[in-house]
Formats: sequence, C-alpha cells, structure tokens
Amino acid sequence: MKILVLNCGSSSIKYQLFNMAESDWGVLAAGVVEKIGLKGSFLKHQKEGNEKVLLEGEILDHQTGIDYILGVLVSERHGCIKSLEEIDAVGHRVVHGGEEFNSSVFITNDVVRKMEECIDLAPLHNPPNLKGIEAITQLLPSVPQCGVFDTAFHQTMPKEAYMYAIPQSLYKKYGIRRYGFHGTSHRYVSKRACEILGVDYNTQKIISCHLGNGASICAIKNGESVDTSMGFTPLEGLVMGTRAGDLDLGAVTYIMDKELIGTRSASVLFNKHSGMLGLTGISSDMREIESAASEGHDGALLGLKIYDYRIKKYIGSYAAAMGGVDVIIFTGGIGENGDSTRAGICEGLEFLGVEVDPAKNKGMRGEEQVISPDNAKVKVMVVPTNEELVIAQDTKAIVEELANR
Amino acid sequence: MKILVLNCGSSSIKYQLFNMAESDWGVLAAGVVEKIGLKGSFLKHQKEGNEKVLLEGEILDHQTGIDYILGVLVSERHGCIKSLEEIDAVGHRVVHGGEEFNSSVFITNDVVRKMEECIDLAPLHNPPNLKGIEAITQLLPSVPQCGVFDTAFHQTMPKEAYMYAIPQSLYKKYGIRRYGFHGTSHRYVSKRACEILGVDYNTQKIISCHLGNGASICAIKNGESVDTSMGFTPLEGLVMGTRAGDLDLGAVTYIMDKELIGTRSASVLFNKHSGMLGLTGISSDMREIESAASEGHDGALLGLKIYDYRIKKYIGSYAAAMGGVDVIIFTGGIGENGDSTRAGICEGLEFLGVEVDPAKNKGMRGEEQVISPDNAKVKVMVVPTNEELVIAQDTKAIVEELANR
Repeated sequence: MKILVLNCGSSSIKYQLFNMAESDWGVLAAGVVEKIGLKGSFLKHQKEGNEKVLLEGEILDHQTGIDYILGVLVSERHGCIKSLEEIDAVGHRVVHGGEEFNSSVFITNDVVRKMEECIDLAPLHNPPNLKGIEAITQLLPSVPQCGVFDTAFHQTMPKEAYMYAIPQSLYKKYGIRRYGFHGTSHRYVSKRACEILGVDYNTQKIISCHLGNGASICAIKNGESVDTSMGFTPLEGLVMGTRAGDLDLGAVTYIMDKELIGTRSASVLFNKHSGMLGLTGISSDMREIESAASEGHDGALLGLKIYDYRIKKYIGSYAAAMGGVDVIIFTGGIGENGDSTRAGICEGLEFLGVEVDPAKNKGMRGEEQVISPDNAKVKVMVVPTNEELVIAQDTKAIVEELANR
Repeated sequence: MKILVLNCGSSSIKYQLFNMAESDWGVLAAGVVEKIGLKGSFLKHQKEGNEKVLLEGEILDHQTGIDYILGVLVSERHGCIKSLEEIDAVGHRVVHGGEEFNSSVFITNDVVRKMEECIDLAPLHNPPNLKGIEAITQLLPSVPQCGVFDTAFHQTMPKEAYMYAIPQSLYKKYGIRRYGFHGTSHRYVSKRACEILGVDYNTQKIISCHLGNGASICAIKNGESVDTSMGFTPLEGLVMGTRAGDLDLGAVTYIMDKELIGTRSASVLFNKHSGMLGLTGISSDMREIESAASEGHDGALLGLKIYDYRIKKYIGSYAAAMGGVDVIIFTGGIGENGDSTRAGICEGLEFLGVEVDPAKNKGMRGEEQVISPDNAKVKVMVVPTNEELVIAQDTKAIVEELANR
C-alpha cells in the first residue's frame, strides 16, 4: 500500500511517499516545497537511493504546491510511481484536534468541519493543514485521506493535569486547557522504546523528551499520556530555540506595561525572541550555542545550564506525577544528537536510579540506543523519532479497517 | 530586649511586641489595625493572657495607626509597658528587597533609598512597608529599626534557577528574574525542622511547602534556598486561594484578546479570580472547599485534586534540582492544619522514600510534629511558621551587633 504523507505549513509542504508492506515499510521518495506564495519558491525532492534535486518554480498556493509534488512523483526523471492511481491513501499531519479528536481519523466532510472549529486554537497551523486536505480532495478526489493530530495522544490526560487554575468559565467558553503537542512523536518513541527493550508498553512509566526547535516532555504511564509540558499553546514548558517556556504571568503583564506593547508584540517576544536566543543573545541553534560555550561565552554557558535544568526539573516532576519512572527517552534533533545535553540533564538524578554511561552516550548521534549502564534501574535511551511513519501506519490501519467493514 | 514587630499592608498594620531574653522569648501583646483610611477602621489588641479587645477610631493613615498602637501598648487598661522608652527596637517586614538585600538590615537613610528603588518591583507592598518605617522615624526617632525581607533568603539561588528564558536585556533593564517570596517563613521552618530532628542544617536537602492564602514551595540545600516557586511576582507557581500560579503564556495573550481586556484586568483576573476560587467556583477558603467536596461538589473535588497535584509535581521537581530530598515540611494555614491535603500531596511519592503515617497525620493541627513513619527515608513534618519571631530575632541580633561594635 502506497501512502503519501503530507505536513502542510503556512508556506511549506513536507511530503514522504511510503510503501507500506504487511510488516515492513520503505520510503520511495521525500521532499519539501518551500516559500509557497513567496519569491523564489522551490521544491526539493529526493527519490530513495538518488541525489536530492532542486526544482524551482512559481508556487502560489498549497494546491499548486501539491500538484507540483504529485507531478514530480510520477515524472520519468525523478519519479517513483507510474501513475497517481498507485497512491492508495494520503495521511495528513494536523496540529490541533482540540477535544474533538483523541485518535487518527478518516477524513469526511464532517471531520473537516470539526477541524475548522479547531482553527481558533491553532490559527497559524490548522488552516494550512486544511488547505492540504482540500487540495488532495480536488486533485485526487477518489483517494481516502486520514488526519493524524499532534494533540490526540494527550487526550488521555486526567483533568488534574489538563485544567489550569483559572475560572472554569474560560475553559467552557474558549477551551483554555492543556492540550499538549508533539503527541505523534511521544507516542512513537515511547512505543518503540518498549519494543527495543522487550517490555510491555502498558506497564511502563516513561518520560519522553522531544528536544528539537520546539521541545516538550511527556509522562506516559501504562501506555497513556498523563501529562505534558506544552499546554494550551506550544509556548509553555521547556526552554526552546526562541520560545520562553514557563514564565511568571506577573512578568508578562509587567513587561507589556513597561515596554508599552500589546498582546501581539508580547506573543512575538515570547515566541520568537526568547528561549535560547534571548538567553544567549547569539543564536537559537544548539550547535552554535555549544560552540560559543566551548569558547567561554557567558550567555551561551548560562543558556545551556538553564536548558538542562528546566528539563531535569520536569523529569523529577513527572516521576512524581507517575509515582516513579522506568524509562527516559531522548528524541528530536537535540535529544538524538546532543550527547552533552543528555548527560547534563541526567546528572544528579542518581537518586531516581537514573544514570548515563559516558562510553555509550558520548558521540552517539541519531541511533536507537540504550545509554544507561546495563544494570541501571532506569533505562535511559535515544530513540530517533519518525512522525511521518506513524502517520503512514495510522493511515494504513484506518483505510484497511474501512475496507474490511 | 523589647522589640516591636510591624507588618504594614496597604490598609492594615499587624504588630507584635516581643520580649527577647538571652535564649528565650515571649509575646507581650499583639494585634492588628484594620481599614486604615477607610470607614470603620479599628484596632484589635490582645495583651498576653488577656481577652482580645476591639477599639474603634478614625485611623486615616499609617502614622496615625502606629500612634494608636503605641498608645494602646502603654495604656493603663490594655498596655504591657509603662513607657515607650521600653521599646528597644522595631523590626519591619519588607516584602521586596530586589537584588539589593540578601539579609536583614539596620535601616539607614541609604537603606530607605534602596528600598524605594524596589517599589517598582512590589508597587502594592513596599510603599506601606516604607510608610511604617517613616512613621516610626517620626514617632520614636531614637529607636533603631531593622528591615527583614521576604525575598532575602532566596538571594542564594543560582542563576539557572532565577533567570527566565527571555531576552537578557529585560533582566538588565527591569530586573525581570525569579526573586521568590515567603523567604522568612521558609528560612524559619527549615531551620526549626533541623533543630527538632537534631540534624545539621547545612547538610540537608529540604523541601518547604508554605501553604496559606498565598502559597510557595522552596528547595533548600545545605542551608541555602536553591529554587522556589514564586517568581518575579507572588503569582507564579502553586495554585493559591485566588491566584492562578503556573499558566501557559499563550493562554494569557489569548484570553486578553478574546475578553478584550488590558494588562490591569488580566492581572486582576489571574490574581483575584483564579486559583481555588476560579476552579471551584465557590470559594478561596480551603475549609469551605473541603466541606463542599465532602458533599460531592464537582468543582471542589477537582480543585483539591489540582491543588495537591501541582504541589506533588513541585516536590518531584525540587528533589531533582537538589539530587534528592531528606525532609519535607508543611507550614502555613493549610500546611499546618490540612491533614487530607498533606496526605494527598505525599500519596504516590513512595518511590522517593516519602511516606505519611495516617495515625500521626490525621487531625494533627498546628503542632511541630514528624508525620512520617519512624523508619521513613524522608522525614515529613509539620512546622508552624513564625515570621514575626524571625523578624524579632534578626532585629535583636543586628541591634546587639551594632552595640558591640
């Protein structure tokens, strides 16, 4: 079964064409359309086993972008399928499913309507997701589509984890609560970790740290997300590349008053100019920060300390929430590649049974590996994430189930 | 040595007259002036061993209020000293000492100037504190005065604990950082706990939970505050009577946009209408909430769960910050009296070595007591706080040291 996975952003579309066999899978091609509606838009495409190619062109909207992707997938030179009829289904990443969606779904008109109702909760993310769905409806009208939500995995959180201590009327009126994000990633790596360890997913206490440009941490108990650090929006929680994470509300209104800025500028300040960029004053990129730190840059050294410290505290917090921890997972660009970050986070957590074996950790980049000593009480692991694969798997399962009805 | 302790709020003044002997102390009288500058102002006064008396009068400002207090202290009927000359020193509670004050100080003109510079950080609290100092300067010009700061104890926090992940320029321009509050209480109960246990304060990992109308939690390692939940303002952290504590910044700007409110209304919303009041919809008072919960009120039951859950997570977080925990202390009205809250918080923390002995905990109100089983790894304790005593002790020490110079 060939499944096209689409991740539509406001000005970009990432895609992967999967070949899903009974128990195996492969990627036939992958790529990205960038700068949709902007000057210099292009498509970067890679057929499995071939070099990357760059195709320039005027891509004014998402439908044109997807049309361009479909064209290159069947093209003689760069393609990997003979006809678009080979595409059995399309799986879409959808950022916000609100309280409507607690699992991946087959997309119907009714589902699209419900997705539209969630736009208010993710005004930057859900509209391009919906554009992608609409474009496929136009271009491949007979192909089934599925939606896989960033928030769905966290819908198992108990009320004490997702309710904020604000008037309940604000929850009822606007849906202000913790939703959590990166759910597809947390679900994938936590399950995968249990496969690697050969343990039952439904009996484990897992803390999953997704550390990329965005970063979140998730407590997974007996196979269910019970708490996560991103909240109503992806701004809460850990220190990220340019996002502040946790901050005193009193500081928010204070800064707005002092700087004479409104909610829009405040939002830009805390989303785009804060985090590691704000702290270090030099960059949001962990490699650049580590390089500056190695040369003794004060801001970089402080930024790295705060980055690790915040995650360390969340690990303690989620261990308390679950009554202990069996497995800690690092994923995302920084989690998968940052050996010193992993070591820094785990340092001092020996009282929880957390240890990192320096020989296993040092230099380990992007591989599935246990990095705790063999006899450690808590398994500390690196598990590279693969959200696209989850989207392909969910789509396959849903389409097959519908066919078998 | 007789020391008058003053805690001046915007419309009230609490006072206690201490008699500080070499190794012992007593309270000669205590009381409060309420509704300063408002209709129906009064003074409630109690001489040690006597009934409380209520004295009505027109009290238009802080100086009049303090004059009234001094009058009653020397009055024939309710007084406990013969002349004001018996007052050897006055100790003031001062809420915010910024980064200027890391311990209690003898008040000079220079100190007053520095306190005035901190007004911006605590616009509601520091001005009445300063009014109290000015009033004593007028009324008892030859009596030495000392200031004891809520923030001072937390000045030992390392940078990774007190810096937020926002542009460092905002720290430099406005002093936006974590200061922490309730420092006098956290200092008192943590030291007192070690005295009771007979252990060395400078070797312990202590988590102190001050749970009153305001609530904060503090990690104290080797005798120093290393982290605390209140931050730039007393709004951050735990769920409080009417304060939200931690909340996604993204929710703040979202609510402001949806409700069309500015920073002032937002501040009122999160400080006065949130917390337990907002969650339960019925009350900010724990006794009323517990009573409603016992009758099955959904909001009350949820509120109590969230209240405990937030504290439980902070305990895990601070254990991680310190590399473990030896002692957990409950203090403040709810911490000292709320047996079910104490039990609810500690439930599920057995993996940390935390246990509560139901027989020791149940019904225990306001007494110094260890409530963990005798063989428990972590000592869980109730220690009633006494900030006024700390102010008297600090004032005595400073005055004596000056006299010995």
